[in-house]
Amino acid sequence: MKTTRLGRQTVRLGRPPAVLSWANIGGRMESQGPLAADFDELDDDPFFGRKTWEQGESAMQERCLRRALDRAHAAPEDVDAVLSGDLLNQCIGSSFALRSFGIPFWGVYSACATMGEALSLAAILVDGGLARIAGAAASSHFCTAERQYRQPIPYGSQRTPTAQWTVTGAGCCLLGTADRGPFVTHVVRGRIVDLGITDAANMGAAMAPAACDTLCALFRETDTVPADYDLIVTGDLGQLGREVTAELLEREGFVPGDRYTDCGLLIYDREGQDMHAGGSGAGCSASVLCGHLLGGLARGRWQRIVFAPTRALLSPTSTFQGESIPAVCHAVVLENASGAGEETVCSI
Amino acid sequence: MKTTRLGRQTVRLGRPPAVLSWANIGGRMESQGPLAADFDELDDDPFFGRKTWEQGESAMQERCLRRALDRAHAAPEDVDAVLSGDLLNQCIGSSFALRSFGIPFWGVYSACATMGEALSLAAILVDGGLARIAGAAASSHFCTAERQYRQPIPYGSQRTPTAQWTVTGAGCCLLGTADRGPFVTHVVRGRIVDLGITDAANMGAAMAPAACDTLCALFRETDTVPADYDLIVTGDLGQLGREVTAELLEREGFVPGDRYTDCGLLIYDREGQDMHAGGSGAGCSASVLCGHLLGGLARGRWQRIVFAPTRALLSPTSTFQGESIPAVCHAVVLENASGAGEETVCSI
Repeated sequence: MKTTRLGRQTVRLGRPPAVLSWANIGGRMESQGPLAADFDELDDDPFFGRKTWEQGESAMQERCLRRALDRAHAAPEDVDAVLSGDLLNQCIGSSFALRSFGIPFWGVYSACATMGEALSLAAILVDGGLARIAGAAASSHFCTAERQYRQPIPYGSQRTPTAQWTVTGAGCCLLGTADRGPFVTHVVRGRIVDLGITDAANMGAAMAPAACDTLCALFRETDTVPADYDLIVTGDLGQLGREVTAELLEREGFVPGDRYTDCGLLIYDREGQDMHAGGSGAGCSASVLCGHLLGGLARGRWQRIVFAPTRALLSPTSTFQGESIPAVCHAVVLENASGAGEETVCSI
Repeated sequence: MKTTRLGRQTVRLGRPPAVLSWANIGGRMESQGPLAADFDELDDDPFFGRKTWEQGESAMQERCLRRALDRAHAAPEDVDAVLSGDLLNQCIGSSFALRSFGIPFWGVYSACATMGEALSLAAILVDGGLARIAGAAASSHFCTAERQYRQPIPYGSQRTPTAQWTVTGAGCCLLGTADRGPFVTHVVRGRIVDLGITDAANMGAAMAPAACDTLCALFRETDTVPADYDLIVTGDLGQLGREVTAELLEREGFVPGDRYTDCGLLIYDREGQDMHAGGSGAGCSASVLCGHLLGGLARGRWQRIVFAPTRALLSPTSTFQGESIPAVCHAVVLENASGAGEETVCSI
């Protein structure tokens, strides 16, 4: 099968790369959440054995990459590229994580949608024969994010009900050529959608229109409907954002129903853990993908899922300057059947 | 010709994308430099008509993209992806620039090597038929960079002799399928090289080993030598970094001689403009590429060049925490002859 641009946003990969291995890691809050059993490693120490939170965030990505390499029985020399990013200024979470591996490294910045973009590009490299093995990784850390974006943690500032909690976590997966999946079969690049929302404590609502835009592009360009997927998971829209997205999709004629959920809702027990609107951060979708979702696919719980993390386009500076919060959503389709060799993917 | 992974770092593109159009913009200092005639637009106003420097930086990228679209006789709807980045926290320079176009947008972060990474990925998308037209863009702004990385500008802090001056500028180019070049023929992804340098005011020296590593990978994996190229241009190593890179290359047996220069040296008259070690910033290599270099290729001044911008992996936080400054260099080969259709590229 040939790699085909199905429309302006969706590409169907002709030789769908297999996810050879994956690994994730979380912190204390993640260890108390409903997905705890889906983590490879849960560490109570917010420094992850290092001296600063930022170094701890790098340590998380580093440990995930090491574990993913071990599981794929691969050495760093076998990997031709890693695409990785995080929320820290100048993306130091990823760059210092990658420092010791000697693997060619392309940095991506797509905020909380980083794993969607990194996975898309890694898949394109392997599909095109441009890399033997390519990795995708992302992380976030509650303490580094609070320090950088919000208030010093000892202040104990109150959060609004719409606020989300930045996940302390990371995820990494390695893509290559193999007979067994899960496979990355489609990549959907997102467009910027700006409805003029300016409340940085309500990012779910700001990002919902972007999630809807990308999911509709996928459905239209592949001629599918939500029922063709076993699970549709946005990144970290949280409770409110999930509701808005579901409503927007319904208005477009795509009723997602119960098969639609959100990584930010899955990772915490919102009420038991007092997590307000849910989890967020680049490490939220990355750690949920590289544990719960890929694990569920591998075990046959689902056969075909859409992973669609969203990002907000803002910084403390842009917020101070009164800018709105545009958003983007990057999606990939993951399937247990590669569809390779078939002339057309029948059920799509 | 088939797209081929020549080695771990270098890919030869089988259907080399043509650079359909390019555009750049600069500020006051750039208008006083030796490349002034190679800029499409030079604006004395550091706000570029907006209210803040950061908005001005977005305006630069926006104007470049509009001009590149005009020159390619393309509408935003014809472009399937733009890859873009800048030096600002959370890359707001690029994301707000792209906001109004409705073009699918993947954010990249590779500091001063952003244009190298963006161009590489855009070329891969067009080469593989994954995008009809793909854009690459990057920017930097002296005032936004000083405010974010160094001291408030009114302090008038003294700079060390090894310090570089952040270019106020942006560049954008659009890649597509065409009979006429320049063409992107090879992509080289860089590895992180860390020699333990910690002086953030001497980034040229920190980045030189990465430039050498990537250029040597290109030479070895394509079986070429510096003399096979008319021009080899690193990103913004400045005076000292250029000297170190030349020496390191010579030690590896690749004598670059006069055909090797650096965008940071080209853009300013170092002595006349009191620019210390030269220019830097993501907008340095981007604006030099999208004017001087692509223009020179199109006019036949050069037939084959290597564009190899470098990045430092650091942030104010990592520097405060005593981290070293690892570096990466991402390169592309640009040629007037595409080499497509030939079984082997003869002279390479």
